[in-house]
Amino acid sequence: MSSRQIKMGVIQFVFLFGFLWLNIVSLCSGGITSKYVRKQASVDIPKQVFSSPPGHNAPEQVHITQGDHAGKSLIISWVTPVEKHNNFLIYWEAEGEHKHKHRVHSVTTTYQYYNYRSGYIHHATLKRLQYDTKYFYEIGIGNVKRQFSFTTPPEVGPDVPYTFGIMGDLGQTYDSNQTFHHYLSNPIGQAVLFVGDLSYADDHPFHDNEKWDTWGRFIEKSAAYQPWIWTAGNHELDFAPEIGEHVPFKPYMHRYHVPYKASESTSPLWYSIKRASAYIIVLSSYSAYGKYTPQYSWLEKEFPKVNRSETPWLIVLLHSPWYNSNGYHYMEGESMRVMFESWFVKNKVDLVLAGHVHSYERTERISNVMYNITNGLSTPVKDPSAPVYVTIGDGGNIEGIADRFTQPQPSYSAFREASFGHAILEIKNRTHAHYAWHRNHDNQAMEADSLWLYNRYWYPKEEKSTGADMV
Amino acid sequence: MSSRQIKMGVIQFVFLFGFLWLNIVSLCSGGITSKYVRKQASVDIPKQVFSSPPGHNAPEQVHITQGDHAGKSLIISWVTPVEKHNNFLIYWEAEGEHKHKHRVHSVTTTYQYYNYRSGYIHHATLKRLQYDTKYFYEIGIGNVKRQFSFTTPPEVGPDVPYTFGIMGDLGQTYDSNQTFHHYLSNPIGQAVLFVGDLSYADDHPFHDNEKWDTWGRFIEKSAAYQPWIWTAGNHELDFAPEIGEHVPFKPYMHRYHVPYKASESTSPLWYSIKRASAYIIVLSSYSAYGKYTPQYSWLEKEFPKVNRSETPWLIVLLHSPWYNSNGYHYMEGESMRVMFESWFVKNKVDLVLAGHVHSYERTERISNVMYNITNGLSTPVKDPSAPVYVTIGDGGNIEGIADRFTQPQPSYSAFREASFGHAILEIKNRTHAHYAWHRNHDNQAMEADSLWLYNRYWYPKEEKSTGADMV
Repeated sequence: MSSRQIKMGVIQFVFLFGFLWLNIVSLCSGGITSKYVRKQASVDIPKQVFSSPPGHNAPEQVHITQGDHAGKSLIISWVTPVEKHNNFLIYWEAEGEHKHKHRVHSVTTTYQYYNYRSGYIHHATLKRLQYDTKYFYEIGIGNVKRQFSFTTPPEVGPDVPYTFGIMGDLGQTYDSNQTFHHYLSNPIGQAVLFVGDLSYADDHPFHDNEKWDTWGRFIEKSAAYQPWIWTAGNHELDFAPEIGEHVPFKPYMHRYHVPYKASESTSPLWYSIKRASAYIIVLSSYSAYGKYTPQYSWLEKEFPKVNRSETPWLIVLLHSPWYNSNGYHYMEGESMRVMFESWFVKNKVDLVLAGHVHSYERTERISNVMYNITNGLSTPVKDPSAPVYVTIGDGGNIEGIADRFTQPQPSYSAFREASFGHAILEIKNRTHAHYAWHRNHDNQAMEADSLWLYNRYWYPKEEKSTGADMV
Repeated sequence: MSSRQIKMGVIQFVFLFGFLWLNIVSLCSGGITSKYVRKQASVDIPKQVFSSPPGHNAPEQVHITQGDHAGKSLIISWVTPVEKHNNFLIYWEAEGEHKHKHRVHSVTTTYQYYNYRSGYIHHATLKRLQYDTKYFYEIGIGNVKRQFSFTTPPEVGPDVPYTFGIMGDLGQTYDSNQTFHHYLSNPIGQAVLFVGDLSYADDHPFHDNEKWDTWGRFIEKSAAYQPWIWTAGNHELDFAPEIGEHVPFKPYMHRYHVPYKASESTSPLWYSIKRASAYIIVLSSYSAYGKYTPQYSWLEKEFPKVNRSETPWLIVLLHSPWYNSNGYHYMEGESMRVMFESWFVKNKVDLVLAGHVHSYERTERISNVMYNITNGLSTPVKDPSAPVYVTIGDGGNIEGIADRFTQPQPSYSAFREASFGHAILEIKNRTHAHYAWHRNHDNQAMEADSLWLYNRYWYPKEEKSTGADMV
């Protein structure tokens, strides 16, 4: 080596080192780990607290969800515990001239799970509803007749404001109850985006399916009045070959119907809806997603259908988070991330909501799509086209809090806290949405992390976190 | 910065640079890309060439596979095109004292696929066979009676020699025929490990299921006489919601039964068998494999069941390769790799056989399991506990050759060639097995890549490639 070569080598060193140093610095800056940690243990509320409504065969476990792609239809579901009757409902507009009462019969199903036999599970679809209109509905007859109401969403459009509640991994503990009532006490939520893990029946001997019934009664106070948009989590699998139960998602799919055919899906485990100014895609972490599979093929065709001039806000729900810096379920989402992340970035998904980890975390806008198996480019980097990833599996279920965050906090993680809670997403127009996570703090819901989200299609500026005010 | 700090910094530079340089060198050394490229186009052999055997309702498309976990049972399958009769078989030992004839009735199924109605598909299970014994069997009666034979494997044991043929992505072209006849002409193969993509019916309008029938007739010459161990590929999905066909794997699962219940699997798409000194695990690239899913849960329980003192050779079959440096299907296997690779390394899998890419490739023993999403350790490294990965989707189907290898050849790739062919794995004892890939070269099968494989459990030494003699 000549002295000139050595000199060039040293210059190369300096450039290389500078590059590495910049990368190290960028990796070490950033996120907040809240010091607040929820310590309370989670115990299920006894079954008898969630008792059936009075009267013989009274309809119970009433819940509603969107029934078509654009929000003019609604699926109303309920259970009659001992007989098939009470299998219809009456509905009518609350105000205005069209007070004509419509009668709709349900499609009814039952299932056996090990030693449990379900009640009669009814699903009725209300079609051709008016947008932005309040309706009443009554299920059953005589002294077991029960009345509820719902309001349809405004017509789909780019600047239609709409407010979603966000919950996941709810279960039916005293903590679940606190999360649920904090959400209920906030009057602005119009529909719930639920990111999976509903009843946690499978945490009980033989997947005690009575826990599916008690959960249906638990959430009725909200779910009978506003649609809950369902995502399947691992606790919906109920896969238990040791007791002869090997059909995945059996109780869930009998109980919670979704309008999957309206988005040309072939399975209720993945589908999409439009609601106000949002396009919501629901994926299944526990179904096949390899290339050529039904879910993959569907999603590939789905993205081109999203018209951001009609629905500016593109939101994905899935259960197992792709970016999670908690020791619990660390990197479980990798397998789906490596399959789909590049599509999310290319299509400028605004927000990805996941559950699974019983804790709260929000990421920066980052992506990790450059890796080619030999180039080593496998570290998440800032990316203005990438979604914000929120992990909100902190409903408060029986399994307790996930309080083992990895250290140091990785650069992709903007805010994380080991607490139970729920979030609210207020879409204001095509450019702005306010997002806030509400921690369960003693007897109130505290806004502990919040952010003005800027739409990735219409206003792809960098957001400034206003959260962490409680740290 | 003091001058001492600068000096320390320079020393750190040199160490860092040295480290990087060594890595770069190790990345650039190694593999061979054969210059031989098969240019011939692939055209399907006309249907009428694969005509039904003579006689009314004659049994056809006869194929056999292992029928239990240890090889004492056999599933024999056939089709009767127009009537359900001829739904039994007679079998007897070829030699020895027990020439008593046994009669077994089939379980019969049919299916409709779009405008196609299948013939009667029969599956008969022969139980309690003697090990290492030749049997004859006859299907049908009268002038359509057809006779075949098979030999059961030797009793499972650690030093039992056994020879497998290996094929994938076969299809039914003139190239397929060449691959198939090269395998047939080699008398040493005792059973076929087939890595998925059978008939390529789905490449024809409306997934022309007559192509499933012609394929069954095509392979009968081998598959009626020795077991083919089946893996499902993407061409088995037959998922076509546009023509109302949305049940994945419908034709495949009706036609090709496997003994999945014997390994406590809940799906024919993943299962295991023991055969001689080999333990063979079959996985499904196109089913769910996320944590908690049926396939994941099964595989998690499966590895601890492998007793290397009984079956030293642990071999996995799956369709979509994890290590493939061809531009075709590049990195499609990542999603499954990130889920399962650490189990393969921990359990010292000897050999992973995949198809999907219409070309041939063999890797070094490498693994890529250190990555933690922030540490950048995402480059495959040499690992004596890792399997050799073979991609052998080069049966010669209608889609032609995959001849776009990535450049430069990555360090994980030991040998690759864009040709059709098959391989032979000769297990000699618990420590040694000879593996050879035979390229279709004009009218003969040329051994173009070969290797003495050393068992990872009993003799985990580094192997020396003896291949590439034809390059």
